[in-house]
Amino acid sequence: MSDVPKTHPRYLSLTLRDTIVAGVEQGITSIHGLIAHGRGEAFDYLIGETTQPFAIQAIHAAAAMLRLAEHPVISVNGNVAALAPEALIQLGQVLNAPLEVNIFHTETGREQRIREHLLKHSAPDVLMPTTDAQLSYIDSNRKFVHPEGIFKADVVFVPLEDGDRCEALRKMGKAVVTVDLNPMSRTAQQASITIVDNVVRALPLLCKEIRNFSDPTAEDTVARYSNKAVLKQALEHISRCGNG
Amino acid sequence: MSDVPKTHPRYLSLTLRDTIVAGVEQGITSIHGLIAHGRGEAFDYLIGETTQPFAIQAIHAAAAMLRLAEHPVISVNGNVAALAPEALIQLGQVLNAPLEVNIFHTETGREQRIREHLLKHSAPDVLMPTTDAQLSYIDSNRKFVHPEGIFKADVVFVPLEDGDRCEALRKMGKAVVTVDLNPMSRTAQQASITIVDNVVRALPLLCKEIRNFSDPTAEDTVARYSNKAVLKQALEHISRCGNG
Repeated sequence: MSDVPKTHPRYLSLTLRDTIVAGVEQGITSIHGLIAHGRGEAFDYLIGETTQPFAIQAIHAAAAMLRLAEHPVISVNGNVAALAPEALIQLGQVLNAPLEVNIFHTETGREQRIREHLLKHSAPDVLMPTTDAQLSYIDSNRKFVHPEGIFKADVVFVPLEDGDRCEALRKMGKAVVTVDLNPMSRTAQQASITIVDNVVRALPLLCKEIRNFSDPTAEDTVARYSNKAVLKQALEHISRCGNG
Repeated sequence: MSDVPKTHPRYLSLTLRDTIVAGVEQGITSIHGLIAHGRGEAFDYLIGETTQPFAIQAIHAAAAMLRLAEHPVISVNGNVAALAPEALIQLGQVLNAPLEVNIFHTETGREQRIREHLLKHSAPDVLMPTTDAQLSYIDSNRKFVHPEGIFKADVVFVPLEDGDRCEALRKMGKAVVTVDLNPMSRTAQQASITIVDNVVRALPLLCKEIRNFSDPTAEDTVARYSNKAVLKQALEHISRCGNG
């Protein structure tokens, strides 16, 4: 860990950088995941490194959708496991939803190390990929899922997703809630609800929103929600930053 | 290496990702360098993954400044060494300027491995940091330089620089030419000339510009050049992208 003072204006960003590097050293995060983290850093910088109104709006709709889900599942990759294990586990608890490991780059044992990392942080259980159930429309390793997890899910919460799998899940008729700092990414564009925010800031807010949920018109909230409009707002925010 | 087809619209970006990961595996690029690469990817995406007019303008002024320099030096870190060793060496040849290794994260032997990597790509010689000469205004490992290299330089070409050292070099009265995809970075803001472009695209263009240089008013070109105006154009470009 570096000695970034807490008063540094970019303290959170610099601390997260150390956390994700530690994730690589522990064999949880892939080397490609570091590059993805850097892309996220750049977009976070552009949205002001703070949770913006378009993210708050998406979080509210996501809470409604996840509350209404019959079988919500939380998909975990090596980046989010390193950055926010406690918040993932909390989300699983408030939703009574399983966590399932699903990664793109399958270096030997990494899936198992992610599982152990989550169990060490007191996850009650963690589902693993199987060859018993496979997603359609996808060729990569990410097609292997758990029959009682992602395979059966009606709503999948997949922070820091890749575009191919997001598309496959949607084609299979599943709703997808994602957290992605790039409003132009394929994932952001194809998800049902995209929270354009840093996963470290968004996850605790989403947990709180679900815990205190009291929207009698939850179905209307979901029906009225426009992901396109939210992404447009995020793009406009980035655009204003560029004018600075 | 992955099997990205050449027809893929983002072929260069995906290939560079593999190159930089290979750089880490060879012990040339630091793990933190991967995150920096990811940030660069995001900004490259925003500028359209192509060399824009503001970069062309900066390249022309940089060619003039480097041509006029009495003692130009090329500072090399682990990212640029992995991404563009041949172009760095070519630039050294057209300028008759030494390459000097200067890195922030000094894992054991990395400086030496960068040197060997460049020699393997036919660099005539590579200067190394020494304790005989130190930069002022800087505490990190990057202060250690070569007395016949960066220490003596009037113009330092430092692609993918860090903000602290850029500031230190400027305070010491040296001119700095940098290549940085983020027009808002401290390096971009403080350099004498900032080429806002991918280093892999910009370096060959800079070499060509220097090789064919025939500007009888080179001093005027440098004097008239406004880095502030060029950075403003880059920001406006990003802003238009955000409006898309």
